[in-house]
Amino acid sequence: MADEPRTYGTALGASDPTTITLLGQDLAQDVMGTVGFGELAFWLATQRRPSWGEVRVFEAVLAALADHGFTPTAIVTRLTYLSAPDSIQGALAAGLLGGGSRFLGVTEDCGRFLHDVLSTLDEVPDDDAGWDEVALATVRARRERGEFIPGLGHHVHKNGDPRTPRLMAIAREESLFGPHLRLFDAIGRTHSRVLGKTLPLNGAGVCGAALADLGLPLELLRGFALLARTAGLIGQLAEELRDPVANDIFLSVDRASRPVPPQP
Amino acid sequence: MADEPRTYGTALGASDPTTITLLGQDLAQDVMGTVGFGELAFWLATQRRPSWGEVRVFEAVLAALADHGFTPTAIVTRLTYLSAPDSIQGALAAGLLGGGSRFLGVTEDCGRFLHDVLSTLDEVPDDDAGWDEVALATVRARRERGEFIPGLGHHVHKNGDPRTPRLMAIAREESLFGPHLRLFDAIGRTHSRVLGKTLPLNGAGVCGAALADLGLPLELLRGFALLARTAGLIGQLAEELRDPVANDIFLSVDRASRPVPPQP
Amino acid sequence: MADEPRTYGTALGASDPTTITLLGQDLAQDVMGTVGFGELAFWLATQRRPSWGEVRVFEAVLAALADHGFTPTAIVTRLTYLSAPDSIQGALAAGLLGGGSRFLGVTEDCGRFLHDVLSTLDEVPDDDAGWDEVALATVRARRERGEFIPGLGHHVHKNGDPRTPRLMAIAREESLFGPHLRLFDAIGRTHSRVLGKTLPLNGAGVCGAALADLGLPLELLRGFALLARTAGLIGQLAEELRDPVANDIFLSVDRASRPVPPQP
Amino acid sequence: MADEPRTYGTALGASDPTTITLLGQDLAQDVMGTVGFGELAFWLATQRRPSWGEVRVFEAVLAALADHGFTPTAIVTRLTYLSAPDSIQGALAAGLLGGGSRFLGVTEDCGRFLHDVLSTLDEVPDDDAGWDEVALATVRARRERGEFIPGLGHHVHKNGDPRTPRLMAIAREESLFGPHLRLFDAIGRTHSRVLGKTLPLNGAGVCGAALADLGLPLELLRGFALLARTAGLIGQLAEELRDPVANDIFLSVDRASRPVPPQP
Repeated sequence: MADEPRTYGTALGASDPTTITLLGQDLAQDVMGTVGFGELAFWLATQRRPSWGEVRVFEAVLAALADHGFTPTAIVTRLTYLSAPDSIQGALAAGLLGGGSRFLGVTEDCGRFLHDVLSTLDEVPDDDAGWDEVALATVRARRERGEFIPGLGHHVHKNGDPRTPRLMAIAREESLFGPHLRLFDAIGRTHSRVLGKTLPLNGAGVCGAALADLGLPLELLRGFALLARTAGLIGQLAEELRDPVANDIFLSVDRASRPVPPQP
Repeated sequence: MADEPRTYGTALGASDPTTITLLGQDLAQDVMGTVGFGELAFWLATQRRPSWGEVRVFEAVLAALADHGFTPTAIVTRLTYLSAPDSIQGALAAGLLGGGSRFLGVTEDCGRFLHDVLSTLDEVPDDDAGWDEVALATVRARRERGEFIPGLGHHVHKNGDPRTPRLMAIAREESLFGPHLRLFDAIGRTHSRVLGKTLPLNGAGVCGAALADLGLPLELLRGFALLARTAGLIGQLAEELRDPVANDIFLSVDRASRPVPPQP
Repeated sequence: MADEPRTYGTALGASDPTTITLLGQDLAQDVMGTVGFGELAFWLATQRRPSWGEVRVFEAVLAALADHGFTPTAIVTRLTYLSAPDSIQGALAAGLLGGGSRFLGVTEDCGRFLHDVLSTLDEVPDDDAGWDEVALATVRARRERGEFIPGLGHHVHKNGDPRTPRLMAIAREESLFGPHLRLFDAIGRTHSRVLGKTLPLNGAGVCGAALADLGLPLELLRGFALLARTAGLIGQLAEELRDPVANDIFLSVDRASRPVPPQP
Repeated sequence: MADEPRTYGTALGASDPTTITLLGQDLAQDVMGTVGFGELAFWLATQRRPSWGEVRVFEAVLAALADHGFTPTAIVTRLTYLSAPDSIQGALAAGLLGGGSRFLGVTEDCGRFLHDVLSTLDEVPDDDAGWDEVALATVRARRERGEFIPGLGHHVHKNGDPRTPRLMAIAREESLFGPHLRLFDAIGRTHSRVLGKTLPLNGAGVCGAALADLGLPLELLRGFALLARTAGLIGQLAEELRDPVANDIFLSVDRASRPVPPQP
């Protein structure tokens, strides 16, 4: 018997001459005009249609991460557009490439970290006191290993990141305040007992906790930050088109440059 | 008097120790939990809050463009993830880089083309007969110059792209069936009289017309296709994580390769 | 009879368990240790081994384009590395994405422009006077159409780009001063008679002329500029590792940012 | 006293109206026509001019890594060019983004691994027996921790990668067979005593060892693999221009795709 040729199954987009389907739905009739973009992005990533509450939490996360002003990613997108205005895709891609471990990575790191702690628990605590105990043990263990806590601390919002209580409140309103958020919250309540100082739970971290509670794949948490940022970078380009600053940014660097001898 | 140092104004993200604003709004209180992701993307690109109907049309466009199965961009994202699984941002960026003139470009090309025709009109027609006249003249002029009509024709949906009537219906429902869509529609009604055959108005084209009618910047129409595709590519990665095919795609090409002599 | 399955011929890399070939050569024995990197890049692009003189001109071009200090591409690579230090490939790719129409595009534009003029000639002039005539007609025609001449003018080297005479001299030494360079040179001699002012032939332009004279594919001229720039960007990263400036560049922009109201 | 404004020192490219310098040299007179491209890339990365022998080893490494046929990176570049032919920079950048941990990462991983072992030694062995001892201890330690040895093993060249002995021979000829290569060589001689089977030292690994022995920055070893690959990808694009296969690759995947129900 001959080998069956390999086929590639997909539940995403498919079409024949008369119909286009997406996620098993009729795209034109049952998705367009009916499914919001945040909802669709969630559905594409999980292959299950989210509830209204899940969409609300998810879109709150995307809003929290969409744009933070003149970050490196925003500057990069503007400079790349200056240099190659023929390629919008290049300007957006260049900006997204800054979405790595340092700037956009906290969301993923925090989600993974909380998940790892949860996966060591025999049973999940049923009250705040129980969560505080888990949190204290976690903070102590990391401190002993000289490791910091992902999602804890912020260089600007030293007394509290306003996104954090807001996202927690939204998750509670939608009954989606799950174990990742509970553990993160408990770390916020308890870490000062170990570290001797109070640090804020930052917005990128709480977003990672909320995305993990939504059951989104941990490997892709950074991807959602990048999706949010794509919208932000389009905003940056739109603003650059109306009020260009990239050339002045470039010139400000160029003028401050100073030749020095090679340093072998 | 010394020069004022250059500053860079932005209406996008800004923060101080206690507050984060986005588009002049309090991010935590007035955006998170309140503004949907499609709505936010529109707002970021235009700096004005869209109406409910505008969001519906906009999100219908994003749904139409999010994923078309194993397109080159999807294959590229999966292969890049196979090759560099440490960098989600690289896999997404690589996929977006395929969003150029050929695959995702029709949306932008069609929006620009319609806009260019409209900008030559002294006055906008007030009935279908008037639009048909404009359309006929346009198709004739392009035919004489040997140019094809952006948005006309589809290699699979030869008898009609199901997205086209659906998006037009949604735009009509929301009273957003503006001059770009009207002209595009008229081209659909009349082109066969010039070309001698009936071609479908394709989905990518109608999306460009709808985005232009929403007043989105023409220079960025491709950007919205890329935003939609970012959600699709995350879906592709999520599926690849659960049911990997990239390695088999790579091997199928590798095994079919055949050394040939250099051809100077 | 069944269809033959499609195979993909390639003269580039191939291997079996005991041998690796590249361009039909035994990679280990006949390429490694024998073929220089510039030579190899030329050979890969043309599938013919270049002469020693061709390599010299080609490498002179690469040297001319490798690095120009704190250009947008260099700043982008440094900022992307700051933001995502886990991904060298992302930092380099982001920098290359700035290699578009404005900054690195002149090389390609100039090569194509000269080629287009040459392809209209019934016969190639055999002396400078003949070339001057072609050049004058070309400059006049473009001036009448309101088009500028690719490769003519430089914002810094107003009285002459030192790369231009040097590359021309090298090409002459190697007997590779072909029709693209001759035409470009003639434009340099004659344009002031039409334009009423003397502009320098810039380095990016002369590089395009030289690459075209080497018979390299016009569609890829920008690619060679990008190859040169890849080496430059690695140099930028090496310097950033030893003497980091990206964070200060970021902060200088961030501090100069100023919230403004949205401008719908 | 006012703060001095921040300046950004660079030893790379600089220019004034009459002169362009690169690495402190006069670019036109002392680099163009004189310095080869491999030599220049080395110089840019280290800020010291390499010896002739260093250039030979370095260029042998670049040749070894330039192209391996239809790898994921090559397929990605061809598909991206198919999809966005207007942007050569996008096609090259997309291909480079596959240069991550799995395909091009071995060079860097192996260089770092050898360096880490060397940095634990109080003194460097002075004969092969001494190196064998270090190698055995290293292999044992990694085996106990369940870690594999970077650079050991190859899925095609099971009985030996022809690049490995060749690069070692070149390094010996140039008196550049340093501690990284010596340790790697000793691992090749001894690992079977611990692992119970003989695996080949692969070409990517030996390249990492050689680059480390050249004193190139470990953080950038992957960068040199990417530089080599840039030349290879230009070769892929040149071949694609003459004998296009990307559309058939895309269609072969598209035709083998099969809709499956969503799997929540």
